[in-house]
Parts: sequence; C-alpha cells; structure tokens
Amino acid sequence: MSTIHQAQIKNDSLFSLGEKGLLHLLTGHWKTDSAKVMVGVGDDCAVLRGEGKNHFLLFKTDVVVEGVHFSKKAKPEWIGRKALSRALSDLAAMGASPVAAVITLGLPANESVRRVGAIYRGMEQAAKKYMVNLVGGETTRAQQLFLNVALLGECRGYQPVLRSGAKAGDLIFVTGRLGATQARRHLVFEPRLAEGQWLAQHKLATALMDLSDGLGADLPRLAEASNIDFYLDEKAIPLARGATLSMACNDGEDYELLFTTSPSHVKTLKKKWPFVTPLHCIGVIRPRRKKPAAPEFAHGFDHFKQR
Amino acid sequence: MSTIHQAQIKNDSLFSLGEKGLLHLLTGHWKTDSAKVMVGVGDDCAVLRGEGKNHFLLFKTDVVVEGVHFSKKAKPEWIGRKALSRALSDLAAMGASPVAAVITLGLPANESVRRVGAIYRGMEQAAKKYMVNLVGGETTRAQQLFLNVALLGECRGYQPVLRSGAKAGDLIFVTGRLGATQARRHLVFEPRLAEGQWLAQHKLATALMDLSDGLGADLPRLAEASNIDFYLDEKAIPLARGATLSMACNDGEDYELLFTTSPSHVKTLKKKWPFVTPLHCIGVIRPRRKKPAAPEFAHGFDHFKQR
Repeated sequence: MSTIHQAQIKNDSLFSLGEKGLLHLLTGHWKTDSAKVMVGVGDDCAVLRGEGKNHFLLFKTDVVVEGVHFSKKAKPEWIGRKALSRALSDLAAMGASPVAAVITLGLPANESVRRVGAIYRGMEQAAKKYMVNLVGGETTRAQQLFLNVALLGECRGYQPVLRSGAKAGDLIFVTGRLGATQARRHLVFEPRLAEGQWLAQHKLATALMDLSDGLGADLPRLAEASNIDFYLDEKAIPLARGATLSMACNDGEDYELLFTTSPSHVKTLKKKWPFVTPLHCIGVIRPRRKKPAAPEFAHGFDHFKQR
Repeated sequence: MSTIHQAQIKNDSLFSLGEKGLLHLLTGHWKTDSAKVMVGVGDDCAVLRGEGKNHFLLFKTDVVVEGVHFSKKAKPEWIGRKALSRALSDLAAMGASPVAAVITLGLPANESVRRVGAIYRGMEQAAKKYMVNLVGGETTRAQQLFLNVALLGECRGYQPVLRSGAKAGDLIFVTGRLGATQARRHLVFEPRLAEGQWLAQHKLATALMDLSDGLGADLPRLAEASNIDFYLDEKAIPLARGATLSMACNDGEDYELLFTTSPSHVKTLKKKWPFVTPLHCIGVIRPRRKKPAAPEFAHGFDHFKQR
C-alpha cells in the first residue's frame, strides 16, 4: 500500500478534482492481498474470497446525508428505505444476495426522536423485504443527519459479475426506464436484486453495474473498466414518465441495472427473462478508440462539481 | 423484525434518552436469522456464522466526526489512524483478526485535499500495521468532516469471546493503564488485537470487551450482559500517567481490554501472558443483586448527555 503522491496534489481544491477524482486520489493506489481479495476499489462492491471456489463475500459502504441525498422534508420512512436500498442496489449490480448490514447514524442533538424512529422503520421494512439481517448499529452526534449502511452480501455457487468484462460486439441493456428521478423515485426505487442474481447465475451478463450517477456518467465508467468504447442508440433509451433524454442521462439515482451481453446470448436473455421489469437494448460495445465517445450532454451527477 | 413501539417514545428528546437509550430504542427490537447470525446488536461486533463449526465473521461499523471524536487541530494522520483503530479495537474486544475495511468519507466542499490525503495516509499506515485490506470507499459532501469505517474480521478455528459469559467468582482484569486519554492518547492508542486473539484462542477469558466509554460505563455493560454484579478494588485500577481514579473511570477512549477469567485459570493467565502490555486484576464478579452497584462517580462518556 503506497501513500498518495504529493505531486498529484497540485490544486488543493475539491471543486477542481470532483468526486471521482478525489476518490481516485485517495484510494486509487490501495493494494490488497490477492489470496483474500478478488476485487478491491473500483467496482460496485469489493469482492472477498469465501470458502471454496464458488463462494464470494461482497462488501459495501454507502451513506445518505441530509441536504445532499435527501431533503429535510422527505418522508422519514423513505429516507431509511433509500439508505438501505442504495447499498442493496450495489449488491444487485454484481449479482449478489444480501446477508447482513450494520448502520451508523449521525444526528444533531436537537433532532426529533420520532423522526429518527420513522427513518429506522423505513429501513427495517426494506430489510425485511430483501431479507437483510440488521446486526449492529451505533449513533453519534453530528451537525447534519446522516445514515451510513455497511452491507455484506454473497454469491454462493456462482461468480459475481464485474464491470470489466464487456467485449467488442456485446450489446448494452438497461432494466426499467430512466430519468425524472428527482421528485420521488430517488427515494422509493426497488433495488434490482432478483434481476442481478438471475443474470449472474445464468452467466448472461459480461459486465454489470447499477445506474447511480446517471447513464451519462456510469456507462463511460463501465467502458473504462472494460477498456472498450460504446455506441448508444439514443432513441432506444427507455424514458421514465416525464423524462427527457438529457434527464435520462444526467439525473442520476435511477438504480436500474446496466449490463452487456454477448450477441450469442441475446436470444436466450430475451426469451428467458422472467421479470416484469422492462428490458431494453440501448447500444453496442465497440473496440477502444483513442478518445472515449461520451456524448456532450451526458455528464452525470457529481457532489462536489455540480452544487 | 418488529417496529419501534410508539408508546416508548414519550419524550421526543435525545438529551433525555442519551446515546445508549437512543440506540436501544432504535435497534433493541432487531431480530436476526439465527442460522446466519450468532450475535446481533449489543456486543462489540456482530458475529455471523462462517463455514464449518469454528469459523466466524465479525462485522462492525464505527465513525469519527470532527468536533466530536477529534478536534480540527488534531494531526491529520492521527485522525485516520484513530478512525481505523477504533474499529480494530472492537475486533480485539472479541478476540478476532481483521480481514477487510470499507471507508466512507464525508467532507465540506471547502476542505483541504492535502489534509484529507494526510488523514488517509494515517489510516493506510494503521491498515498496513494490522494487516487490514482497504477494499472500498466512497466520498460525499457534508457540513462536517466524518470518516466511517466498516470492518470485517474473523475467528478461524476458535470462538469469539462475548460480553455475556462472566460468572460469579470470576476475576476482572484490564490491560494497560486507564485515564488521561483526552490530550493525545485517544488518537494514538494501539488496539489490543494480539492480546484479544490470544485470550480467545487460549480460552482464558469468560467475557471480553474493550473500554471505549470508560470503565465506569463499560464494566456495568459487561455486568448487565452477563447478568451479574461486580466488586471493584479501586486501589488496583492501574492509572495512566497524570490520571486520577475519576479520570480512569470516566474519560473514556482507553481502548484497553476489559475481561473476566475463571479463578482456576488465573495462574495460567499470569504465567503465560506473552505481552509487554500490563495486566491488572481490578475486581471480582459477584452474583446479581437487585440493583447494580456502579459507583456514583463512574458514569462514562455519552455524546448526547454530556455536551
């Protein structure tokens, strides 16, 4: 594990780095013990080796902060639901099943206990629905309410699907419909756990991730991880009610699955897809050119750069 | 998993509940799947069943918040070191070894990237020393800097030691020396991982925990979990340089181990203890009376009640 290279820190400002740049600066050099760790930083979850050849533990941390990920006026039950569901979506993004979660709550000393109770009720309902064991928690004083979820999942009998497996010629699919997430959908989405598990168990996805920052930010990440380019058929992008193409690319917080599949598997995929969740082919993977081809309007969401 | 009973929330104030009361209100009713979970809420870590009879996964979340757990003036490397070491101390408190950690960083948009880099360097140095794989991280905007560590550990070939195993007649021990932690020691302590693992592997502790909120708060917790009382020999409590008895009981953040051992094992314990870390017998476990016997001056540290 080397330390951050001082020369990298030229401009001492988060605005110029952005969220992704900061994360890369802080964690990009982390090295892990390959006997224990299959995937470290850079995918939706870390993947640890379990017992035997086909058992993997997935590990994720995710936080929601008042005023950043939800407004003070949001229905408290939905805040708790969102906090857990976001982390669950990251398990879905690798095809894993949830095992257990531990929760950190930060809150101002004048916060209403009733409101916090309602936040936890929403989280507990989601935990029950998706069979997550809530096994531990702690609270701390803070200026601003935040809820951190650390989640452990597993793939038992099959391999998790990484972001890095897309190949030239693969077709690009999304579940559900994108955009117009800001009013309500960013709070009450359903993590696509069953869909992700099915894709992984049937080996029908070559690369898989969830859409948390918007197609315009997330598809280029998949492309970079897989070292390929892509062609998007903009007309094929499924728009949620009230969404424009720009919203579908940039709103973020769709929490739908984005995946690639080999052309030889497309027929099976479409025929056997057992879910009511819509499935749309939106493009194709191309060999890597020198410069990535993200459309101009597609930038996705960045905490530090945008607000 | 039942929800919080409305009638429990009489007084809608954190001050009247305190940190422990709030945590009990929020998580005290959590039920877990006993096939997967051996210990849920209430011990230093959650304990999940691993593969086979003698493999256990330990799971913990812990946060440090600027202005609460460290001051803005604290050496940045020490902040990162503390964040990881606190969680490691909770693994030590059950006799486990670290496996992997995922980190959430919350920070104001005007925070210095240099300072954050130094905080991470401190954390990375501690991770290297204690062989923790740093496998994932995320960042978010927040009003106040915070660093959440979610840690996964294991006991392989032996059982973790719970808080609840103390029996009448057992002797009470602490490692190290207590109190006077506020200036520097709360940042640069050594988590007692080797000591905890040794106690667990040799089955020399009937109950084990770490001292995070002070002996005055933590020993009554061990007593409650084990359903026993205790007699403390105040003169035997090992004081750190500059500490009074009250400080040793109430300062908190000693991160030493508190454990009980059967009288038949005391001789072996003292003879075989292979560490330079001091070991002191400070009292004895007694059968439970009706009212617990915590000394008046011993209240420990509470985020919500004290400040």
